[in-house]
Amino acid sequence: MAELDDLPLRDDLRGLSPYGAPQKHVRIPLNVNENSHGIPEPVARDVVTALAGAVLQANRYPDREFTALREGLADYLGHGLTRDNTWAANGSNEILQQVLQAFGGPGRSVLGFPPTYSMYPILARGTGTTWVAGKRDADYAITPETAVREIVATEPDLVFFCSPNNPTGTPLALDTIEAAYDAARGIVVVDEAYAEFAPPDTPSALTLLPGRERLIVSRTMSKAFAFAGVRLGYLAADPAVADALRLVRLPYHLSALTQAAAVAALGHADELLATVADIAAQRDRMLAELPRLGFPTRESWTNFVLFGGVADPAALFDALLERDILIRDVGIPNHLRVTAGTEVETSAFLAAMAELAAQ
Amino acid sequence: MAELDDLPLRDDLRGLSPYGAPQKHVRIPLNVNENSHGIPEPVARDVVTALAGAVLQANRYPDREFTALREGLADYLGHGLTRDNTWAANGSNEILQQVLQAFGGPGRSVLGFPPTYSMYPILARGTGTTWVAGKRDADYAITPETAVREIVATEPDLVFFCSPNNPTGTPLALDTIEAAYDAARGIVVVDEAYAEFAPPDTPSALTLLPGRERLIVSRTMSKAFAFAGVRLGYLAADPAVADALRLVRLPYHLSALTQAAAVAALGHADELLATVADIAAQRDRMLAELPRLGFPTRESWTNFVLFGGVADPAALFDALLERDILIRDVGIPNHLRVTAGTEVETSAFLAAMAELAAQ
Repeated sequence: MAELDDLPLRDDLRGLSPYGAPQKHVRIPLNVNENSHGIPEPVARDVVTALAGAVLQANRYPDREFTALREGLADYLGHGLTRDNTWAANGSNEILQQVLQAFGGPGRSVLGFPPTYSMYPILARGTGTTWVAGKRDADYAITPETAVREIVATEPDLVFFCSPNNPTGTPLALDTIEAAYDAARGIVVVDEAYAEFAPPDTPSALTLLPGRERLIVSRTMSKAFAFAGVRLGYLAADPAVADALRLVRLPYHLSALTQAAAVAALGHADELLATVADIAAQRDRMLAELPRLGFPTRESWTNFVLFGGVADPAALFDALLERDILIRDVGIPNHLRVTAGTEVETSAFLAAMAELAAQ
Repeated sequence: MAELDDLPLRDDLRGLSPYGAPQKHVRIPLNVNENSHGIPEPVARDVVTALAGAVLQANRYPDREFTALREGLADYLGHGLTRDNTWAANGSNEILQQVLQAFGGPGRSVLGFPPTYSMYPILARGTGTTWVAGKRDADYAITPETAVREIVATEPDLVFFCSPNNPTGTPLALDTIEAAYDAARGIVVVDEAYAEFAPPDTPSALTLLPGRERLIVSRTMSKAFAFAGVRLGYLAADPAVADALRLVRLPYHLSALTQAAAVAALGHADELLATVADIAAQRDRMLAELPRLGFPTRESWTNFVLFGGVADPAALFDALLERDILIRDVGIPNHLRVTAGTEVETSAFLAAMAELAAQ
């Protein structure tokens, strides 16, 4: 058996570690912003029926254009979008990878605003795109002026916004996206993975799409839809964007199973999204309770909370893990991130935090 | 709505067309080397049961290490391989893309031997790896001397062999792989997508793995396993290769559905592979009949046949399509490729060819 160093690995990969949160089996997993609510039984039945149909034709390659799925996504998103405005892949990571392959790559750069989704720089490296770290304002906000200043200073080929932002929960106003689009020469991606957890009637960046062919809004079924295991990321954009992604996507990249399951789930969007209000309520409980325990929080429009005031994040992480509660150290000093789970899970987490704060 | 040229596409993608055979609905699809036999009913039932279990936990991210699947793949492959020797992805295209991301990329090159699988140069371009086209011997063979000569002349970072070769059906002897490995400084990939259709007891490149940490044998469940719709490619190699691919794979790249379906199917490998002998028999019928009709063939160890003597490939393709039979123009002058279907499909194809040859 050889060692990794015995292989002719690319030089820029040497010494790196694979990305990924620890996958531990615990009673209360609040580390990767999953939806703690399972798929409702009637929805699961329809999904399985759709899968059974796909299995009977599994000897054939899937629809390379995933037409039914794109129609379902357009119907769900609304805003006058049609099938041709949508595109999907195995998780929004693959969506972003394809966008970087088509519009980034060697000699090009992507601007992001850390602390933000930690896969962005990894996807940039994997596609040979230069990662440029822009500066945020206080409290992780990005005003239009800040966005424009960073774009003018760094002249990126792509700009990635995470809205609301992971791992901070911070909302992003549409006027920042509009100003950034006008200042940028290239593609502007608004990653709305957590958009469904924003306050009701918050306008999405989807409303900005008309007339902006360089704007891409990406979404996922992993969070609000409780479909992380199915790996379905998608985007809305001008139809020309899908034409571009067809040049870099692997043929038949979406399996017949993925297509069937996602189409069936989209047909039950209302039932799947019924948990969103409860999850937001648990998030708001944590936003209210944690500061009282000495752990200040900031506004969150997502299904998680970043809290500060942690003298020793590794020690608190371990103390929670001993209580079978898994949360996430996202690398921000004196902070940890916790997902809003069910009411029972959230109560268990808050009780453990109260106990640990009192020690 | 914008045009593709309005977008800031990478310069090297401008003017290209997406890869992919036409997806037409015909009665007899013999164009993409699928398995014409569906999944047997008892196997389909077990696969659907496994999928139902996965759906009930779809709110959670899948096992990032797909441990059960890797164990199933090692069991199927035999040769003393263990879980750590295997790796999987969404189709062998993604396997090869990950291999190129880890060991190829900008400033590196991959040597292949056209005519061969047409995705190789596309995957090379998509990862910034330089594609180098090596020369074959007569009748599409590659002797050890030819392989070594091309490797010494071009000094590639990776070598891709397709064994048996698509689209020609040509077998590749193990001594060519051994000689190529010794001559090459980098990774040698043997793509055995069609290995199950080789004559019984043909040794696989898997037998060459011990002591060769730069050798990768890739496989797929799309062909012999009749699982094209599920998109499951895999490889066997030294465990260090999986360590390298972990650095470039997207986290959770294999969905819980893919993992569950593939594990269940591997548990029924014997039943799924029961169609292989019949498919090989239909291939042999075509190898015998087509020359009598004036279309010379060459040895094929796959589930398809490349035949020559076609004065006007586009005209013959269209004439077959009018008869609801879809085959493939792979771009070799005066040749077309046809998949071995069921006995009924093969008879219909041969009858149409006899009719067209007599015109």
